[in-house]
Amino acid sequence: MRVESVEAIPVEIPLTQNFGGSTYAVLKRSTVITRMRTDAGLVSEVYNGDNREHGLEITRLIHEALAPRVIGMSIFEGERVWETMFALSHASRDRKTLADIGREMEAYRLAGMAGCKFKVGGLSPQADAERVEAARKAVGSDFMLAVDANRGWTADEAIEFARLVEPLDIRWFEEPCHWYDDAALMARVRQATRIPVTAGQSEITSHGVRRLIDAGAVDIVNYDASEGGGVTDWRRAAALCATAGVAVAHHEESQIAQHLISAVPHGTCIECFADPERDPVWQRMWVNRPAIRDGMMAVSTGPGFGLELDAAMIAKYRVA
Amino acid sequence: MRVESVEAIPVEIPLTQNFGGSTYAVLKRSTVITRMRTDAGLVSEVYNGDNREHGLEITRLIHEALAPRVIGMSIFEGERVWETMFALSHASRDRKTLADIGREMEAYRLAGMAGCKFKVGGLSPQADAERVEAARKAVGSDFMLAVDANRGWTADEAIEFARLVEPLDIRWFEEPCHWYDDAALMARVRQATRIPVTAGQSEITSHGVRRLIDAGAVDIVNYDASEGGGVTDWRRAAALCATAGVAVAHHEESQIAQHLISAVPHGTCIECFADPERDPVWQRMWVNRPAIRDGMMAVSTGPGFGLELDAAMIAKYRVA
Amino acid sequence: MRVESVEAIPVEIPLTQNFGGSTYAVLKRSTVITRMRTDAGLVSEVYNGDNREHGLEITRLIHEALAPRVIGMSIFEGERVWETMFALSHASRDRKTLADIGREMEAYRLAGMAGCKFKVGGLSPQADAERVEAARKAVGSDFMLAVDANRGWTADEAIEFARLVEPLDIRWFEEPCHWYDDAALMARVRQATRIPVTAGQSEITSHGVRRLIDAGAVDIVNYDASEGGGVTDWRRAAALCATAGVAVAHHEESQIAQHLISAVPHGTCIECFADPERDPVWQRMWVNRPAIRDGMMAVSTGPGFGLELDAAMIAKYRVA
Amino acid sequence: MRVESVEAIPVEIPLTQNFGGSTYAVLKRSTVITRMRTDAGLVSEVYNGDNREHGLEITRLIHEALAPRVIGMSIFEGERVWETMFALSHASRDRKTLADIGREMEAYRLAGMAGCKFKVGGLSPQADAERVEAARKAVGSDFMLAVDANRGWTADEAIEFARLVEPLDIRWFEEPCHWYDDAALMARVRQATRIPVTAGQSEITSHGVRRLIDAGAVDIVNYDASEGGGVTDWRRAAALCATAGVAVAHHEESQIAQHLISAVPHGTCIECFADPERDPVWQRMWVNRPAIRDGMMAVSTGPGFGLELDAAMIAKYRVA
Amino acid sequence: MRVESVEAIPVEIPLTQNFGGSTYAVLKRSTVITRMRTDAGLVSEVYNGDNREHGLEITRLIHEALAPRVIGMSIFEGERVWETMFALSHASRDRKTLADIGREMEAYRLAGMAGCKFKVGGLSPQADAERVEAARKAVGSDFMLAVDANRGWTADEAIEFARLVEPLDIRWFEEPCHWYDDAALMARVRQATRIPVTAGQSEITSHGVRRLIDAGAVDIVNYDASEGGGVTDWRRAAALCATAGVAVAHHEESQIAQHLISAVPHGTCIECFADPERDPVWQRMWVNRPAIRDGMMAVSTGPGFGLELDAAMIAKYRVA
Amino acid sequence: MRVESVEAIPVEIPLTQNFGGSTYAVLKRSTVITRMRTDAGLVSEVYNGDNREHGLEITRLIHEALAPRVIGMSIFEGERVWETMFALSHASRDRKTLADIGREMEAYRLAGMAGCKFKVGGLSPQADAERVEAARKAVGSDFMLAVDANRGWTADEAIEFARLVEPLDIRWFEEPCHWYDDAALMARVRQATRIPVTAGQSEITSHGVRRLIDAGAVDIVNYDASEGGGVTDWRRAAALCATAGVAVAHHEESQIAQHLISAVPHGTCIECFADPERDPVWQRMWVNRPAIRDGMMAVSTGPGFGLELDAAMIAKYRVA
Repeated sequence: MRVESVEAIPVEIPLTQNFGGSTYAVLKRSTVITRMRTDAGLVSEVYNGDNREHGLEITRLIHEALAPRVIGMSIFEGERVWETMFALSHASRDRKTLADIGREMEAYRLAGMAGCKFKVGGLSPQADAERVEAARKAVGSDFMLAVDANRGWTADEAIEFARLVEPLDIRWFEEPCHWYDDAALMARVRQATRIPVTAGQSEITSHGVRRLIDAGAVDIVNYDASEGGGVTDWRRAAALCATAGVAVAHHEESQIAQHLISAVPHGTCIECFADPERDPVWQRMWVNRPAIRDGMMAVSTGPGFGLELDAAMIAKYRVA
Repeated sequence: MRVESVEAIPVEIPLTQNFGGSTYAVLKRSTVITRMRTDAGLVSEVYNGDNREHGLEITRLIHEALAPRVIGMSIFEGERVWETMFALSHASRDRKTLADIGREMEAYRLAGMAGCKFKVGGLSPQADAERVEAARKAVGSDFMLAVDANRGWTADEAIEFARLVEPLDIRWFEEPCHWYDDAALMARVRQATRIPVTAGQSEITSHGVRRLIDAGAVDIVNYDASEGGGVTDWRRAAALCATAGVAVAHHEESQIAQHLISAVPHGTCIECFADPERDPVWQRMWVNRPAIRDGMMAVSTGPGFGLELDAAMIAKYRVA
Repeated sequence: MRVESVEAIPVEIPLTQNFGGSTYAVLKRSTVITRMRTDAGLVSEVYNGDNREHGLEITRLIHEALAPRVIGMSIFEGERVWETMFALSHASRDRKTLADIGREMEAYRLAGMAGCKFKVGGLSPQADAERVEAARKAVGSDFMLAVDANRGWTADEAIEFARLVEPLDIRWFEEPCHWYDDAALMARVRQATRIPVTAGQSEITSHGVRRLIDAGAVDIVNYDASEGGGVTDWRRAAALCATAGVAVAHHEESQIAQHLISAVPHGTCIECFADPERDPVWQRMWVNRPAIRDGMMAVSTGPGFGLELDAAMIAKYRVA
Repeated sequence: MRVESVEAIPVEIPLTQNFGGSTYAVLKRSTVITRMRTDAGLVSEVYNGDNREHGLEITRLIHEALAPRVIGMSIFEGERVWETMFALSHASRDRKTLADIGREMEAYRLAGMAGCKFKVGGLSPQADAERVEAARKAVGSDFMLAVDANRGWTADEAIEFARLVEPLDIRWFEEPCHWYDDAALMARVRQATRIPVTAGQSEITSHGVRRLIDAGAVDIVNYDASEGGGVTDWRRAAALCATAGVAVAHHEESQIAQHLISAVPHGTCIECFADPERDPVWQRMWVNRPAIRDGMMAVSTGPGFGLELDAAMIAKYRVA
Repeated sequence: MRVESVEAIPVEIPLTQNFGGSTYAVLKRSTVITRMRTDAGLVSEVYNGDNREHGLEITRLIHEALAPRVIGMSIFEGERVWETMFALSHASRDRKTLADIGREMEAYRLAGMAGCKFKVGGLSPQADAERVEAARKAVGSDFMLAVDANRGWTADEAIEFARLVEPLDIRWFEEPCHWYDDAALMARVRQATRIPVTAGQSEITSHGVRRLIDAGAVDIVNYDASEGGGVTDWRRAAALCATAGVAVAHHEESQIAQHLISAVPHGTCIECFADPERDPVWQRMWVNRPAIRDGMMAVSTGPGFGLELDAAMIAKYRVA
Repeated sequence: MRVESVEAIPVEIPLTQNFGGSTYAVLKRSTVITRMRTDAGLVSEVYNGDNREHGLEITRLIHEALAPRVIGMSIFEGERVWETMFALSHASRDRKTLADIGREMEAYRLAGMAGCKFKVGGLSPQADAERVEAARKAVGSDFMLAVDANRGWTADEAIEFARLVEPLDIRWFEEPCHWYDDAALMARVRQATRIPVTAGQSEITSHGVRRLIDAGAVDIVNYDASEGGGVTDWRRAAALCATAGVAVAHHEESQIAQHLISAVPHGTCIECFADPERDPVWQRMWVNRPAIRDGMMAVSTGPGFGLELDAAMIAKYRVA
């Protein structure tokens, strides 16, 4: 007996009063009804969840992303159905071909970069390892090469990949594993490879950074002050790293990162997008951007971050 | 030198091409500029984050929630400013007075309930403990009383509260501590009190449940199949609990929970809202709801969950 | 002064009443007297234990297995005497010669097997590694090779062996270390090698499986439903493995294992004896055994395990 | 649909050759067939295990102990059926009445004992706590009282009991929890009560003692030299305890224990049976047993254990 | 056979060249010969250690402190001899009588103190608990009382004491346990009592503070910036504490501590000696000491620590 | 603004009475004043510590070792200044050149040694690895080579070194990492390399040895009975190692070590200085030193350690 169709119906029932608290309102009861039909004519119907914001989006995802994969599967293969749908929560794809890689590396060099963070995790470990090998060949041995899987792999895939690229002098391996068990999976990867493991950009407090450190999951933490708890909390995270023998980096935002990283002995690199169109805040929104030469950028010496924003540009693009 | 004003400006700069991947689009660079003025005339300006969805909402929060608390504070009190703003991320308030409590308890009894889950965490430990004491007095000794702080307290506050209510025969203490370090804080609370600690409703996978168990944070797990990974994953979580000697419950949704809980030896209670207006899905959206008598509800015996939904009601409230 | 003789005397003293509980009887006090004589004429005599079932067997073991090794040793070498006797509790021996290996591998291929689990642990790490190398040479690269030490080695020996065979594409390393500290020793081996470590067949509950997982001792768990807690408990163990990122296998009994393994995403292989005389239950006791082709066996589709036992054979061999 | 009958059939199939190793023989393939009939006429048949020694005993246990409990249960209540059968593996019962307790305590005092180890774990925590209370009342405050549950309780039951008897000045709580997860369960009990937890008599090596210590399961270890690795290994276990701040005791066998316990600073008590008929090895099999007075026994001063065995008695009761 | 005398002889043998490294010299081989005589005339002689600085002091300690305790002990009581000598490494004695306590507490109040840190650990738990009870009675309930055992107790003694004083509203319990295993022993005490445990003054780096936190040994850390790694490292330690939910204090040196403690949200109290003669650096060596009123001291507002030292006093007491 | 000078002034202020306890005296308040001047004319002055013994030595170290490194640094580079000074606490230097190595190895062979412990940690990992390679080349493959970094490296440096020398058949890697976090850093090294890690000579109790074992920091423990707790405590440490699967060695002092090491199954080597001038206690202070031949030394068979000291030599060099 197989799944023939899956229908999702978002429901919102208004409540007669506000059942929320002082910081939030509860004015309706929401749910999504799912109705599954099998080729044998059986119909199953159930409701799920109480998400008051994304009912329509969830319905769309069920219809467009989940149902097509489940239709035709046996209803007795519960674990397979589950695994198939869950896999969508950590899918990723990478579009770059081997042919692109040489040109891209060359562009980074021309931009004065000391190295490049290479996106992997979208293909099989073997295929991505080949791309990294192509990159290493293109740049030679005196250019720093890191890899970033954006949480695209299982621990086993990440380990397989790491062992393949170990001989390529990889500076670090960033976010190797799926989101749903990141600290535990990365700790496994870290034990299985000699390439340093990096993570932290997804944390929003120093407590989250401590979670990674206590799990033995990381060699480098790239906690982002502009996404997380600001300079105050970044400094706390940096102290945790110092006493744990873990290095610190910073996710993007070189304007801010350069001050933070250069102010601690265990700081590593700052990072920016080489493509001049990718990050206009970095490329154009500050009037005193220092040049990058030979892989180095001078730290701005003005007060605070030493950052002078472009008032005209802010005026042009402000949305409120 | 003190903060005189804080201004936030959301900025969105269109990109010349889509820099996203196959499952997401990156069409703009977003950021929020914050401009802080001091009473000495100094102005500081910086940008933060790259949130492409909530720029306006973040701006509103800065103006309405954060700025008022920060204005007037010394710019040299960095940690105090930080703590003041961070506290908003875990604030809660409870509105019930001591007078209401007797009436509410009586209503639960009349509704056939075996007990009541009492909301705390919105007042000081002492004040909330007084409310719980009033509840215990109102219901006598043969009515189950649990408390739920909805992550409203620090570990120290939760421990202080737990010790105050220990003599009141409290069945469990649910989500005692703040979100930012929940497992570690709850583990401290669990060691400091003899009241069982409950959590799990905020997890969306069995991996998250394992995180709580490995941290020694819980005595009871109320992982919600309808919010998390469904029956398949709930059963996995229940197996983890079984081998760890942890009991299982389920967050709300008695229609689903009754089957799950009653199918395992370490199941505890199901829960529903007593207020007839609070949860129409529970009260009215199924046509075969069993009565609750003497704190017990018969498990539906139809196929699957044994749940027959009300087609007319779905038709009336469907939003797509 | 050296040990000249060791004499063991089993003693059983009847008790005047039953001192047991409701589920067991205590009707006698048993012990074993050991009398040791030295070449200097000194005699030592002591009693040990209270084993009510195996007194005669223990006596036999002392006379036949322990005494011959101890006689002649200095009575001042306490640790050496102890170590010598203790080593008997984890001795193993393997009889296969290098010459046999090629023939054996060929037989497995002919039987349709996808691979072979190779017994090691009975010789020195070097000698056993040579045997594995011979096996790999015999089968070529497209045949799965696992090794099973049956708890035959210390951690150091197992690590030495693992490093020697790492280049031979070993699928897993089963029960590498001695029984007396299995989880801790295997965790050491697992950290020291890139070959996955397998264990679990000696556990009789899912609690035991959790012990292995919590110790970080295993990559694959082959808990045996027919020796342990049955399907119900095997499914629990499989859930533990799933959330810990550990794969599951099953010790022997393919008839049962095929259903369990194929029903979970993290299942691996099933195993059977290739020798047609080794396991008549597998070879002959079921009437609907599917063929094995190209390393695959179709899962039986009948109700339950889909297993039809041979009534005549049961009648012939039943012993009660 | 309910279980109507359960039939077990032990099967032994002779093998054509010995498939064992140098230390063991494999001459037959054994298994037990179980055949279950339901009231609806359905019959299920499967085989389990490969135990070459206890097939008949297993068959008897299924017929006499398991089947009667399972017959009549719904076949859809898998977890309940499992739990019911598993509970037999850790059942215990205690026969003493409250009336006996006063007399028994008095007898211990008269025998010169310093205290008494009280058997619990066979009744509910409340019922056993009442018995302990009666014992404490009978002996007054200057008599040592310990309790021993012989692994009879779950962690929750053991904790409930411990809290009930905490005010009764209990010297220690021995083997509080079921065998299947002893270290983890005892660690929970130990954290939840102020009564010291004792275990170790079931270990047969110092590795097992370390397992208990590493799990934080014990305050006192009563590893038995006569059941485990002898004096050499007991001394190792005592060293582990010393550096972990854990005290040492010894399970029964005072003749041996007195020397071991009194030779280390962290030794506690020795124990013997007060009933003159219970342990003839202790009561009668040595000719130089010292008197016990005021709860103290002089340590024998002869060579070795200072133990002179009764040759006539050995001659009379030797069974080989 | 008993120890009759113990003689120690320090020996220093000059070396023919410097065998040290660039940062230290090795110009002699030092050792201490110990010669022990028994009442049976046996003489034992051995050498120990290679301490190039304290040979004479070690010799003195052997003669004056160790030998008198060991003389007369049986040479077969190795563990007892060892324990007796080792106990000297963690002995402490407290001189205050119950009579003194009332007067002392009164003096603290008059000095404007908010509370008092009471020295314990020198008597038995019971005797010290009586002293604390007397102190609590003398000061009433609105005066903060902490206790400091200066590492004077075993874990068991510390736990016994903690339970006795729990009802006395003790703010914290400082350095409860012996030096030789401080983190592990304190972790035991912390789990066994509801009084917060304080330590950290003996650490000289933030790594040491992390050791205490990772061991679960402390609720409050009083790392001393003036003994350890200064303000830079104290701030790191404070960050570790913040993310671990541990409060910070500072050992003595209020002049420095007031700035550190008041600059973090998790700071507690500062401490000083009430006796005007005990700490002239605190009492007299700075010219701008603020008054203490109602348990509060205003934080100095000058640059840096805001501390103006007394030049004349420095000139008078400088020793180089 | 940069540091121009640093001045340190030791101060000792006599107290009016003894504020110490029964085992120590507190007769003065000591501190060190540091006065720092910048090139901008600013002067900072603070006091630190209360060390009553080493005020003058600390002052000397500040003037001679710390100040020269700090002068000229920016006062805003707090972390850099801190790191620069802290680095002095774990600096080391090694003087041997590559040319010396061949000769040295030859001498060891001639002295009958089985192998050599090679000092590293004073140069960069690469430079020291070259020296080890030279040593291995000089001695050939049948000579045991261990390396000892004397705590000279960070974890990263030690790991880099270990990987470079892994192919050189290194028997063990002793004290690879800095003192301030030795157990944690060594545990990282141990996981990252296949060379066994050795430490323990800096411990003075078996508790310290347990700390290393619990941290997973060591494969071999060389606890020194003559520096630590003597034979009694060394035996305890050896028991800990036995149950943890860790081998035991002994730091220097072969006279004592030979008995300890050869008395346990997990003992390894004893060590002595090959240079006849380096250790006169070993070379000349005992009259019955056995010869070393083919890497083996016969264990002395006299009573006790079997050690007969040279009375004349003791008389000549005794200093009290």
